[in-house]
Amino acid sequence: MILILGKSGYIGKAFVEEAKRRNIEYNALSRSEVDYTNYEELNSFFLKIGACKYDVVINCAGFIGKPNVDACETRKAETIAGNVVFPVMLSNLCARFGAIYCHISSGCIYNGYDKEYTEEDPPNFCFKTNNGSFYSGTKALAEELINRDKTYVCRLRIPFDHINSPRNYLSKLLNYDKLLDMKNSVSHRYDFVNACYDLIKKKAPYGIYNIVNSGFVSTAQVVQIMHRYLNINKNFDFFESEQQFYEIGASAPRSNCILDNSKLLSTGVNIRTTEEALAESLTRWRK
Amino acid sequence: MILILGKSGYIGKAFVEEAKRRNIEYNALSRSEVDYTNYEELNSFFLKIGACKYDVVINCAGFIGKPNVDACETRKAETIAGNVVFPVMLSNLCARFGAIYCHISSGCIYNGYDKEYTEEDPPNFCFKTNNGSFYSGTKALAEELINRDKTYVCRLRIPFDHINSPRNYLSKLLNYDKLLDMKNSVSHRYDFVNACYDLIKKKAPYGIYNIVNSGFVSTAQVVQIMHRYLNINKNFDFFESEQQFYEIGASAPRSNCILDNSKLLSTGVNIRTTEEALAESLTRWRK
Repeated sequence: MILILGKSGYIGKAFVEEAKRRNIEYNALSRSEVDYTNYEELNSFFLKIGACKYDVVINCAGFIGKPNVDACETRKAETIAGNVVFPVMLSNLCARFGAIYCHISSGCIYNGYDKEYTEEDPPNFCFKTNNGSFYSGTKALAEELINRDKTYVCRLRIPFDHINSPRNYLSKLLNYDKLLDMKNSVSHRYDFVNACYDLIKKKAPYGIYNIVNSGFVSTAQVVQIMHRYLNINKNFDFFESEQQFYEIGASAPRSNCILDNSKLLSTGVNIRTTEEALAESLTRWRK
Repeated sequence: MILILGKSGYIGKAFVEEAKRRNIEYNALSRSEVDYTNYEELNSFFLKIGACKYDVVINCAGFIGKPNVDACETRKAETIAGNVVFPVMLSNLCARFGAIYCHISSGCIYNGYDKEYTEEDPPNFCFKTNNGSFYSGTKALAEELINRDKTYVCRLRIPFDHINSPRNYLSKLLNYDKLLDMKNSVSHRYDFVNACYDLIKKKAPYGIYNIVNSGFVSTAQVVQIMHRYLNINKNFDFFESEQQFYEIGASAPRSNCILDNSKLLSTGVNIRTTEEALAESLTRWRK
């Protein structure tokens, strides 16, 4: 039996859908039902339902900032509470009740193209290196402070799929006035969710996993592919430089990086290439 | 039986000394003995010693930034871990084991002279108001997120006493090259500790308490009083304005405020006036 927290969020919804499709017995909560960010409520909930009822707890809840990560800079209390304090408490509760904890983390704790980052690389875009966004800082800190006993830390990076949504990378590119051309790893939303379920099902070793599609893509390449598949009239406009992007387009620094997913692949879990996932998403594109 | 965490810090030391003087049975820990910021270690410690052994847990541990609060701006991970995540976990453990939790908080979550702040006033120098220092943000957030069941939140403000120390307000004034003249509430270190013990002993209602000496004092007044009691050759130099102070002397914004201590007094706990406490400290001044 699986418990999914954050069921109404972009990632939580996909975990629920895939649980249904896979016939996994699950329970899913949103914060309006049980305020799981309140330790006492969460503890009571676990005790009430019988502590050992859940084998796995998947935490898709967190504070991402809306409309974008810049909002975390001015809402530090919610960002810390949602991304650090809550997962730390939850991971401790899971350890106490013997449940596997699946923590949805982020690849945005790295920045730069010196290398393709593996799970062994310490975050270089975080509080410790004092150069990241507030959001990335809290995500890196949570990885450090959560209980690592029976825990999968699943790093998502720039999610997208075929369904138009404010959280979908493709929708963002279609809606932004101006784009910044950078290379990045990306995660097809359902590929990500399936990889998480596969890791759990396979009883893969606990630990951190970069769950991104193989390969990487630049913003300009995605725009090219979109032109190939969609009937777009729009002329995509690009910032001249990162400097111009920060002057006009953003306040918090953004992570741009390529993650190595070979640890994931080595467990026998498959994930498509970035090209395949993009092509399929745009073929099925739904507004 | 009392457990004091952070026994080697400026405030922790005073709690230990007063426990001895009052013949209170206590145990005191420093992080080098048990890494109490690690939930599993702390939990094991409580379970090992017998969960119900401690009636009261006093948390004097935290991350204050050295040499001053500016350091918290560049060490956000430690500041969040020490001042938010750890106290939240500790307060939840206390609730689970039935211990009274005494949380050492700070009055630096207010700023400005619009009024003398009571415990009813929401912090106005914190993440929510987006104007405080990183330190003050984490202290206000902890007050919000800790378990409030059987909890005393004891707000300290600019500690001092007769013993020269880098944390002592009087030592700071003697050592700084240039001072900023502002009015503030202050807390004599031993008056603070005794008030905390008195609240617990009297079984005062749980909740937040501003534990400051009655009245307030300006920096220039303290300097005057120091001249009266100490044989000082130094010519104290003052910043012309707050603006100049931030241009030259500090990076993080500083809290300057007056706290109302009438809630404390209404419980029957006594605390000296600021004048008395300063005069006594300077009479006994030890280098």
